[in-house]
Amino acid sequence: MISVEEARARIIAGLTPVGLETVALAAAHGRVLGAPVAARVAHPPADVSAMDGYAVRAEDAVAGARLRVIGAAPAGHPFAGSVAAGEAVRLFTGSFVPEGADTILIQENATAEAEGLVVNEAPVRGRHIRPAGQDFAVGDALLPAGKRLAVRDVGLAAAANHPWLTVFRRPRVAILATGDEISLPGEAVGVGGIVNSNSAMLAAFVAACGGEAVVLPAAGDDVAAIAAAAEAARGADFLVTTGGASVGAHDFMQEGLGRQGFALDFWKIAMRPGKPLIFGHVGAMPVLGLPGNPVSAYVCAVLFLAPALASMAGLAAAGPVFEAARLRGSLPANDLREDYLRATLEWDGGWVAAPFARQDSAMLTPLARADALLRRPPFQAALADGAEIEIIRLAL
Amino acid sequence: MISVEEARARIIAGLTPVGLETVALAAAHGRVLGAPVAARVAHPPADVSAMDGYAVRAEDAVAGARLRVIGAAPAGHPFAGSVAAGEAVRLFTGSFVPEGADTILIQENATAEAEGLVVNEAPVRGRHIRPAGQDFAVGDALLPAGKRLAVRDVGLAAAANHPWLTVFRRPRVAILATGDEISLPGEAVGVGGIVNSNSAMLAAFVAACGGEAVVLPAAGDDVAAIAAAAEAARGADFLVTTGGASVGAHDFMQEGLGRQGFALDFWKIAMRPGKPLIFGHVGAMPVLGLPGNPVSAYVCAVLFLAPALASMAGLAAAGPVFEAARLRGSLPANDLREDYLRATLEWDGGWVAAPFARQDSAMLTPLARADALLRRPPFQAALADGAEIEIIRLAL
Repeated sequence: MISVEEARARIIAGLTPVGLETVALAAAHGRVLGAPVAARVAHPPADVSAMDGYAVRAEDAVAGARLRVIGAAPAGHPFAGSVAAGEAVRLFTGSFVPEGADTILIQENATAEAEGLVVNEAPVRGRHIRPAGQDFAVGDALLPAGKRLAVRDVGLAAAANHPWLTVFRRPRVAILATGDEISLPGEAVGVGGIVNSNSAMLAAFVAACGGEAVVLPAAGDDVAAIAAAAEAARGADFLVTTGGASVGAHDFMQEGLGRQGFALDFWKIAMRPGKPLIFGHVGAMPVLGLPGNPVSAYVCAVLFLAPALASMAGLAAAGPVFEAARLRGSLPANDLREDYLRATLEWDGGWVAAPFARQDSAMLTPLARADALLRRPPFQAALADGAEIEIIRLAL
Repeated sequence: MISVEEARARIIAGLTPVGLETVALAAAHGRVLGAPVAARVAHPPADVSAMDGYAVRAEDAVAGARLRVIGAAPAGHPFAGSVAAGEAVRLFTGSFVPEGADTILIQENATAEAEGLVVNEAPVRGRHIRPAGQDFAVGDALLPAGKRLAVRDVGLAAAANHPWLTVFRRPRVAILATGDEISLPGEAVGVGGIVNSNSAMLAAFVAACGGEAVVLPAAGDDVAAIAAAAEAARGADFLVTTGGASVGAHDFMQEGLGRQGFALDFWKIAMRPGKPLIFGHVGAMPVLGLPGNPVSAYVCAVLFLAPALASMAGLAAAGPVFEAARLRGSLPANDLREDYLRATLEWDGGWVAAPFARQDSAMLTPLARADALLRRPPFQAALADGAEIEIIRLAL
């Protein structure tokens, strides 16, 4: 048995980011940039007014002065001429500031009369003008490669005049559930059978991590069926299997994948749940064999599949984020396996984590209700109520 | 000018959840349940073994005893007979426990010999058996209506044998950018023009909040064009406009929407950025008029559009979540407008928020780099370095 950390490192070690593709800006949210985005235009494109008011020369706009309004420049319609002594041009938010003007007289501080514009309060020179390129100039580096695009980044790329972006394509992850006992949700459940919850859950997990899930038809506990499925998975960037944890089934899995040239990297991790995790390769394709119990499969997905997907998607292959919390209740000493307990969280000036009394790796209801996984290192001593612990908050 | 809280309450007040639709389980992640999910099957469906080993009668399985293995029951293939005195049946994880047996002898504690199975260590009665329905029984309420489906919930619904789920359909949000000055990203920018970043950003925002964005062709500062766009938006659940903040443009907006029977609810909010926000209705369709400056539009989307989308999508219409933080640097006293400063965050035993020196509402680069909005209530006194403040962490 190897440690969780070693397992994660070995899974990540051989991964490389997938290739690039071009997507429309409108489809880019959540994607990972494959090339930096630089500004194609300046923002603002010229000196613009930040307020509704008048473009004036500061030296003219003293309190009580009367200015001649020589035109208007609504946003999108710059004033063609220039502002000379004693003149003003009507502007609105976003209007280009005409030549000759250096100051904005906001409309609240002026009175438009038939004989001209009266300055009620002298403006501060240059105030309320956004200079050209204040936000960014042409060529400025705005977004780096490897960044997952947030909503705001989409706005920034739009403002920089990019209709297309280069992103890492979504890693294709084939998902293979195995076992004679499983049926698809909604199908008749055979005698001794159980509904396969892993494929749908893992497909959602893969999609949520930016991948493209390909759910393969499930394979029974049959060497030829598993070999055929592994063959069908060729072309995927990654193969995730579930099941094969039990002694007999494990042999089917190893033998079935073996017919496709499966090279085992490791089997069994010192963790709970998730001990019977398998990792290896069929040709160049990594194969992560998750346990069949859905809680084990989910916990292993959080610890191993999510970082693998991040790595393939072009992101830094960060492991899960651990946060500090305090334990509610007490726990006995831990054994040689790193433990990931399902827990609820409450905020009380800091996180307080209450692990469920029953930590069975087949139980989905407490998993669905959990807010966090509570990590216990191997051989951790017994913990009393209030002890400092580490948690992973569950977002998926 | 009304307060941020009053504005949010008035926007939410008239909203009702959109209708329901049926989606495949495989498409249900992130959707909001429109009907509760109850278990169609029990989980586990029968008493099953949690380990690889042997089904035995506890009274027989004393240390040193020799048992007769009468068959095997791999997962999916239950043993048809019953376990009598002195007998054992080979089981694997997930195997149904045959009649007559009440205990699992795990394989590590037994030796299979030609003459029979030797018990090396007596098992605890009932241990390693997952009783039928331990996770859930037929009819158990598993997921309530109004819950946004996490990855784990998809797994739970699958295990409960649901291939289809009833969810709230995605609220259709029409997005209308206005202004003579704007062009689409990648198109030629006219003289005095600027690239429209709001539509792409808001479309991503709507999608991220579970809505379906319909980006309408932009309308110039022209009453007829705005009226036509408002007409084209009919059938949407909600219309978001941008621009129309400046005095002249505002008139176009009011007049253009007015031709479609726009009924104004309120205009202008005591906040910065975002003061010129408009809200009203065209027929039954709510219309939220966001400012044209992208930072203002984004901040107003966080404060008003996200709760509106949640409400329409069937979720509780919670406002933004405020968290406590400490201020890095100092801030002068605030005026009558509630302020939302863009800030970066650092963790130092708690969040420390450093507002950007420049808070211009047209600047997208600091917005993209911000981790949070720092909220300042109206008339808040000057704040010194380290003062307690409220933040909204930005996820989108």
